[in-house]
Amino acid sequence: MNGQEEWHNSPIGVFDSGVGGLTVAREIMRQLPNERIVYFGDTARVPYGNKSRETVMKYSRQIVNFLKTQEVKAIVVACNTASAYALDELEQEVDIPIIGVVRPGARAAIEATKNGRIGVIATEATISSGIYNRYIEENDNHVRIMGKACPLFVSLVEEGLWEDPVTDEIARRYLAELIDSDIDTLILGCTHYPLIRSTVGRIMGPKVTLVNPAYETARELKELLISKGLESEHRPGLGTELYRFFVSDAADKFQRFANSILTYGILSAKVIHIDEY
Amino acid sequence: MNGQEEWHNSPIGVFDSGVGGLTVAREIMRQLPNERIVYFGDTARVPYGNKSRETVMKYSRQIVNFLKTQEVKAIVVACNTASAYALDELEQEVDIPIIGVVRPGARAAIEATKNGRIGVIATEATISSGIYNRYIEENDNHVRIMGKACPLFVSLVEEGLWEDPVTDEIARRYLAELIDSDIDTLILGCTHYPLIRSTVGRIMGPKVTLVNPAYETARELKELLISKGLESEHRPGLGTELYRFFVSDAADKFQRFANSILTYGILSAKVIHIDEY
Repeated sequence: MNGQEEWHNSPIGVFDSGVGGLTVAREIMRQLPNERIVYFGDTARVPYGNKSRETVMKYSRQIVNFLKTQEVKAIVVACNTASAYALDELEQEVDIPIIGVVRPGARAAIEATKNGRIGVIATEATISSGIYNRYIEENDNHVRIMGKACPLFVSLVEEGLWEDPVTDEIARRYLAELIDSDIDTLILGCTHYPLIRSTVGRIMGPKVTLVNPAYETARELKELLISKGLESEHRPGLGTELYRFFVSDAADKFQRFANSILTYGILSAKVIHIDEY
Repeated sequence: MNGQEEWHNSPIGVFDSGVGGLTVAREIMRQLPNERIVYFGDTARVPYGNKSRETVMKYSRQIVNFLKTQEVKAIVVACNTASAYALDELEQEVDIPIIGVVRPGARAAIEATKNGRIGVIATEATISSGIYNRYIEENDNHVRIMGKACPLFVSLVEEGLWEDPVTDEIARRYLAELIDSDIDTLILGCTHYPLIRSTVGRIMGPKVTLVNPAYETARELKELLISKGLESEHRPGLGTELYRFFVSDAADKFQRFANSILTYGILSAKVIHIDEY
């Protein structure tokens, strides 16, 4: 490990089952421009949403082991499924700060709601895990939460149909019962969903506040780094690789998607054998 | 290994990355009602379509090792990606008959075409592997093949939208260039696609013959078993488990999907640790 002086300047580790967590990395780039990032996307084993708790836990541990070899100073679990299934145990196991995307999203929703009715849209795994309900009820047990699984959204986003009549039609079907249930706040509970935020917002209407956990997570990470004295104070100089990307498979496809959503073009993503960690 | 007498009555091993191969198992049940089947769906590692050749090869080897512990007499690779990436090597490595879904589909398409223009719809991996082109050109080098990746079809099928305006709209977009290219034969080059066969058929029109590799594979398997003297001559008696299902994860979801497409309800699917094979 580096001395305290250099430790500041160590990167943030961010991981997801695939490309979705790039929306979280993007928010960290925006809100914490001085921080270096090491991103890992588990493209060989994506999606996590249909996998069991044990499997997601095993995969998450391997990724944390890999990120530690990169000497990260903090870890962001930029995947709702891994946040739901693995974060509590990982917190016990690692000696650096680690945060997920669920708790920041839940907190922001509680702050935003006025009528105490919060909706959550996410993958089937996140909804059936009940993780948002648990985190929200921990903080405020008067709130009512309505979850709705939207399994097609990930495929539609990855197909690039961010603004499309088909995405509109599917979103109208998924969101109908949330509109009927009179929520005033809706959590975008899957890291892909910020990319169809405008479609969801248009269908839900102006009275519903959308909560983007990617944004809230970057905000919470910033507070955490400051409180621990871990923030990087200067933008890394020329010659420092600001952002590094690793994947477990199919780097080309990852790069194409990353380049479509990140402001900075990524030069390359390196394939590693994650099951060796 | 059993003696020749019992070997007849050993099951057929069928595997896929997930649930799609059940359309192939269904055809085997229809065309070979005397045969027992051991099905493995790699639900922990689905989909294979976005994984590299090396990864698909490794996974396929593990599954073949598992199926051999079940004393199968033949193996059907009911997955286009695995057929494209792993079948040639697996044929060298195993001492029982092994067939994929690509070659039977390619053969049937060559027989069906009159104008020598064949279309293939499949996942991105199958299309970019060029495997249908290779198999078709091996047999007939005057045929022209047009491939079209349809990445959303799998999600739409798994969401149950087999007959739906959204599936119609997406299919119209994907199929437009194939209609323009004047094909007279279209291969359903992904095991999920037989479930939206009627949508595809309606859009392509009556002049285009649809080739269902699941059907052709079962037919070829039947011929193979007869030619090797391996066919089971009698329907297994009461008390024999005719069909057994194994998965690498999330058995409940697998069972729900299986029960929606198979004539016989499946009682249960057993989860195994495939990476130990």
